[in-house]
Amino acid sequence: MTSDHKQASGEDSLIARYFKPIATDPGAFGLDDDAALLKARGEDIVVTTDAIVEGVHYLPDDPPDTVARKALRVNLSDLAAKGATPAGFVLTLALRSVDEAWLAAFARGLGEDAKSFDCPLLGGDTVSTPGPLTVSITAFGRVPDSKMVHRSGARAGDRVMVTGTIGDAALGLDLLKGGPVARALTDDPAATEILSSRYRVPQPRNALAMAVRHHAHAAMDVSDGLAGDLAKLCAASGVSADINAPLVPLSAVAAGLVARGVVGLEALISGGDDYEILCAIAEADVAAFTNEAGRAGMAVTAIGTVTADRRAPRFLDAQGTEISLRRPSYSHF
Amino acid sequence: MTSDHKQASGEDSLIARYFKPIATDPGAFGLDDDAALLKARGEDIVVTTDAIVEGVHYLPDDPPDTVARKALRVNLSDLAAKGATPAGFVLTLALRSVDEAWLAAFARGLGEDAKSFDCPLLGGDTVSTPGPLTVSITAFGRVPDSKMVHRSGARAGDRVMVTGTIGDAALGLDLLKGGPVARALTDDPAATEILSSRYRVPQPRNALAMAVRHHAHAAMDVSDGLAGDLAKLCAASGVSADINAPLVPLSAVAAGLVARGVVGLEALISGGDDYEILCAIAEADVAAFTNEAGRAGMAVTAIGTVTADRRAPRFLDAQGTEISLRRPSYSHF
Repeated sequence: MTSDHKQASGEDSLIARYFKPIATDPGAFGLDDDAALLKARGEDIVVTTDAIVEGVHYLPDDPPDTVARKALRVNLSDLAAKGATPAGFVLTLALRSVDEAWLAAFARGLGEDAKSFDCPLLGGDTVSTPGPLTVSITAFGRVPDSKMVHRSGARAGDRVMVTGTIGDAALGLDLLKGGPVARALTDDPAATEILSSRYRVPQPRNALAMAVRHHAHAAMDVSDGLAGDLAKLCAASGVSADINAPLVPLSAVAAGLVARGVVGLEALISGGDDYEILCAIAEADVAAFTNEAGRAGMAVTAIGTVTADRRAPRFLDAQGTEISLRRPSYSHF
Repeated sequence: MTSDHKQASGEDSLIARYFKPIATDPGAFGLDDDAALLKARGEDIVVTTDAIVEGVHYLPDDPPDTVARKALRVNLSDLAAKGATPAGFVLTLALRSVDEAWLAAFARGLGEDAKSFDCPLLGGDTVSTPGPLTVSITAFGRVPDSKMVHRSGARAGDRVMVTGTIGDAALGLDLLKGGPVARALTDDPAATEILSSRYRVPQPRNALAMAVRHHAHAAMDVSDGLAGDLAKLCAASGVSADINAPLVPLSAVAAGLVARGVVGLEALISGGDDYEILCAIAEADVAAFTNEAGRAGMAVTAIGTVTADRRAPRFLDAQGTEISLRRPSYSHF
C-alpha cells in the first residue's frame, strides 16, 4: 500500500495499524511494497472498479463499517454478475482528516467482508483531500478462459430473471432521508431496520456466480434501477423485453408500502442500489438455474421475456397496460 | 465503464463521447460492459493504484491533458520499478461538474499516453463529488512467474542507483507556486518550462523495466523524495546505505539553483514527485545495467552503497560529513 507523500508518523503508521492486519494474502506483501501481485493461474482476470463518495453514495452518518462493506460489495456484485470468483481488491481512500475511531471501524468491516467473500485486500493508496471522503475500489475476479458473462448475449425467447427483491434499497434511502417511507414506518422498527440495512449494506450474489456462468446468456448487476439497467442489457444485446410488473419480486415491507399507496411500483423499479443480478436465461435452462440458486440459498424470479425488437423494454401491469416510467434510472449529472 | 446512477443524457454519453474512442483494447468491450477482462497469458499480474487530487497532487490550473498524463504516469512509474510490462488500467473519475472542454483535453492526453506507453484503458467509473476533482487509476503490468522486483531484496555491497535527475519536480512545484525558485528564474523561460514540465508530467522509466527485472535486487520508484524512499527500501531489505550526496544526479537547472544558493541539496533529495527508479544492483551487474539503460536512452547513476547495518541511510557531503535532513519525505497528515 503506497501513498503519495507520507511519513513514518503519518500515513505509513495509519496503514500499518489499520490495513496491514487485514492484508494477509501473500500477493499483498504485507502492504510493504509498491505493488501487489495477482497470480493468474491460467484464468482470465475480470476487473471492475466502483467508487463511493460521502453524501453522494452513502450518508455522512452511516456507520463506518457499513461504508467499507458497501464500497467492497458494489464491486463484488459486478464480479458475481460476470460469473467471476473473487480474487482480491485494491483500495484508494481519500481522507479529509484522520479519524482513528472511524478508520478502525472501517478497517474492521472491510476485513470481515474480505474474509467472508474470500476477496483479500491486496494493496491501495491513501491520499488527503479537502473534499468528502471517497472510497474507490478496484476488484478482481477469475473466470476460465473467455467465460466472462457479458451484457450483450441475451436472445429473443430468453426468460428475464432477477435475484432477491427489488426496490428495498431505494426505500431505505428515502427512509434514512426522512421521506414518506420514514413517516409511514414510524411505528415499525423491524421494517425500518430491514430497509436501511438494504441501503447501507448490499447483499451481493456471489454465491450465484457459478450458476450465472453456467446458464446466463447475459447478465449485469442492478445498481441504477431495474428498468434502466434492463434497458442497458437489452441495448447491448440488440433485443427488447416485456416484463410482467406484478412478477417483480418485492420484500414484504416493500409490498406493504405499495399496497398502502406510500410508494408506487414504478419508484421501486427505477430506484437504485439493489445490487441484485439481472440475467437472461434460455427457457430450457430456467429450472436448472433456479435449482442451483436454491441450493445456494437464493431466490430467483422470472419476470418476463426477451423479445426480438429493439424498442425500449416494457413493464406491463396486471391488465397488460404499459407502466410509464418518467425516469428509468437515476443520474447525478 | 460503469457508473453509479447515470442516465443516457448524463454520464453514459459523457463516457461514450470522451473515453470510448480511447478504449480500443478488446478487454475493454468498448466500455459497454460492467467489467473489463485482462488475459493472463500465464504471467503474474502486478497491480498498483495511485490517486491524484486537485489542489493536493496537482494544481487547479494545470492543463487537463497533463493531469491525465500525471495520473497515469505515476502508476506506470510503479510498474517500471517492479520490472513489469504495462498491461492496461482502469480509471475512476470523481467530478464536481461536467466541463466538456476540460474532459475532452483530459481524454486526449490520457489516450495519447495510453497509446505511447502501450497501456490501454480497460474500464472505469465516473462519480459525482462536491469536492475537488479526483483521478484514481489502478494499473496492471505483467511479469513472468514470480519475477516482480521487490523493495526488500537489497544486499550489503549492492550499489544504490537512480535514473534521470533528482529534485526537478520539487523545484517545479515551488516555481508554479511562486516561491523562491520562481523569483530566481524570472528571466529564464527555458528553465521555467523544464521544471514545471517535470512537476506536471513525470517521465516514468518503463523503457528500463526489463533491465530492472534482470539486474535489480530491489527497486522502487522515487515519489516521496529520494531520502525517504531510500529509507523505505532499506527498511524493507533490513539494510542501510551510505550515499555520496555530490553524486546524486541533478539537472543543469537544479545544479545552477544549488550553486546560486537558491535551494539546498537537502531540499532536492527530500522533495517529491521525481518518479525516477531507485534500485540496488550487485557490483558485478552495474556495467550491464548501465549499458542496457544506455541502449534504452536512459541515464543511470550510482550514488552509493548498501551497508549491512540497520540504521537510517546516510547522505554524506564531499567532506564525508552527514547531511542532516529534517524532513526526509513529505506527508499531508
